Amino acid sequence: MKVLVIGAAGMVGRKLCERLAKDGRLAGRAIASLDMVDVVAPTAPAGVGFAVTTAAVDIADPATAPKLAAARPDVIFHLAAIVSGEAEQNFDKGYAINLDGARWLYEAVRQEHLRSGGAWRPRLVFTSSIAVFGAPFASTIADDFFHQPLTSYGTQKAIGELLLSDYTRKGFVDGVAIRLPTICVRPGKPNAAASGFFSNIIREPLAGHEAVLPVEDSVMHWHASPRAAVGFLLRAAEIDGEAIGPRRALTMPGVGVTVAEQIEALRRVAGERVVARIRRQPDAAIMKIVAGWPTRFEAKRATALGFKAEASFDEIIRAHIEDELGGRIA
Amino acid sequence: MKVLVIGAAGMVGRKLCERLAKDGRLAGRAIASLDMVDVVAPTAPAGVGFAVTTAAVDIADPATAPKLAAARPDVIFHLAAIVSGEAEQNFDKGYAINLDGARWLYEAVRQEHLRSGGAWRPRLVFTSSIAVFGAPFASTIADDFFHQPLTSYGTQKAIGELLLSDYTRKGFVDGVAIRLPTICVRPGKPNAAASGFFSNIIREPLAGHEAVLPVEDSVMHWHASPRAAVGFLLRAAEIDGEAIGPRRALTMPGVGVTVAEQIEALRRVAGERVVARIRRQPDAAIMKIVAGWPTRFEAKRATALGFKAEASFDEIIRAHIEDELGGRIA
Repeated sequence: MKVLVIGAAGMVGRKLCERLAKDGRLAGRAIASLDMVDVVAPTAPAGVGFAVTTAAVDIADPATAPKLAAARPDVIFHLAAIVSGEAEQNFDKGYAINLDGARWLYEAVRQEHLRSGGAWRPRLVFTSSIAVFGAPFASTIADDFFHQPLTSYGTQKAIGELLLSDYTRKGFVDGVAIRLPTICVRPGKPNAAASGFFSNIIREPLAGHEAVLPVEDSVMHWHASPRAAVGFLLRAAEIDGEAIGPRRALTMPGVGVTVAEQIEALRRVAGERVVARIRRQPDAAIMKIVAGWPTRFEAKRATALGFKAEASFDEIIRAHIEDELGGRIA
Repeated sequence: MKVLVIGAAGMVGRKLCERLAKDGRLAGRAIASLDMVDVVAPTAPAGVGFAVTTAAVDIADPATAPKLAAARPDVIFHLAAIVSGEAEQNFDKGYAINLDGARWLYEAVRQEHLRSGGAWRPRLVFTSSIAVFGAPFASTIADDFFHQPLTSYGTQKAIGELLLSDYTRKGFVDGVAIRLPTICVRPGKPNAAASGFFSNIIREPLAGHEAVLPVEDSVMHWHASPRAAVGFLLRAAEIDGEAIGPRRALTMPGVGVTVAEQIEALRRVAGERVVARIRRQPDAAIMKIVAGWPTRFEAKRATALGFKAEASFDEIIRAHIEDELGGRIA
């Protein structure tokens, strides 16, 4: 079993590779090798029982994907992307990385598939996003709600999904696109992303720092932990393609909670002393952006296909404390 | 008012140009010039009161669109496409014409818009298709049903819609994508398209010829006449962009009828003598293809925005007799 991870230096990509190193297996088979690539050279996980290569590559360069496909990996994880804010600010770069990067990859797989006489047809897992949906929404968004993104990032992800379904339907690749919820609690430092506060108000208080909450307590959003995101990727790699059917993009399950419910969960898990580190400072600009975001999804198809998120926001917080804080609250 | 029609040699493009020649106006303004292009040089309509140019161009060539945009037309109709059957058989050609052709056009408009300092921002009307939808369907398909095409053609059109909405949202162009129903009655000779029989069973009997019906009478489909299609294009050129909102793709209204209802309408309009020329000859392959097609749409948004189809299939037949047969039935 040969595995390729594109975007292996990102937060989720890194955690995925660490998990692959720990498990030594994927989709029921032993891993023989792992190729990790990203725009900067990723770091190989420690204590790996199989061959690992790391490389810095530019996926916007059409010459990159044919080289990656030539190794004929059994499973390809395509996680590399320019994030939403940057894709919105830099139109050309967003399309070059998020759209062309995916398309060159699919096309390189198709060409290598044809060169193999049809023998090589890898599972390709593409990380899409709930940004493929745009307001106005129903209160709970069904699996057949249409994608009408309101950002360039969401547009690029929606196109990546459509292309992957078509390449899969034609038999060139065996694709699965998974639409990730907002990843929470995101480890690391607070960043300027409009969605950053969802993680900040949990991570910073748990670490003993103050966090700013820029929106109303009533804002609802759709969350999954980094641990759950890695679980989605592993499930997407092993699932039977026939069982998915022709609609190859799946909205992942998650935990739909309001900010008030996030804070209540934090109180239950870590106490009032930690909750007191959240400071309310309304920001009209962020409130406006967030008002256009989706809230809660049915995710019936993905759930039926065995994708599992946390059952509660308490669990999401506990996963963060275990995975990032060594079990300790400040 | 300068007008550009890309795909002006096709059936709908030709009828659109004839109508523009007859009206001399579009969106309330006098037409000063009309540029007609297609993969073969289109024929200019007779008796035109404004300047007309015709040219053969290749829209899959990235060098073509910048030349077309350089003339800064006020309204661009983009009708050029490889049809569904050909896009399915020739994967590369379908993507080159239907996806890249549209994308090069949008990008050329963006570059020319930027060169104009933002002053030039044309209305761009893109003909999409109900092929952006894929089975399984609700019995009546709402405007927020998601696009999950089951053909490469439908995928390419869905991507063209997504890109047009994003380029419009960013202010580079003022786009409107219209999803045309199956055009019926299509003039000309019977062709091999799987949908051909919907027109054949009306057109051929009216002309004194036998027609083959390869499916059950219970098959339902969504129709509009060529005359209505031209009306949709004219409306899409004049409509207020702000009124459309960010969801720039509109499912056009149409007439949802079963084959039995088509035949009943033919009987009412032309009599039993004409209906008797339809010969039933079930074709399992065509029946299977047609089973995956959408049936009937709400088209609430387009109707509210003033797009008008025929009120009945009788009207569709009468439009054909007037427009194509000079009022005479064989």
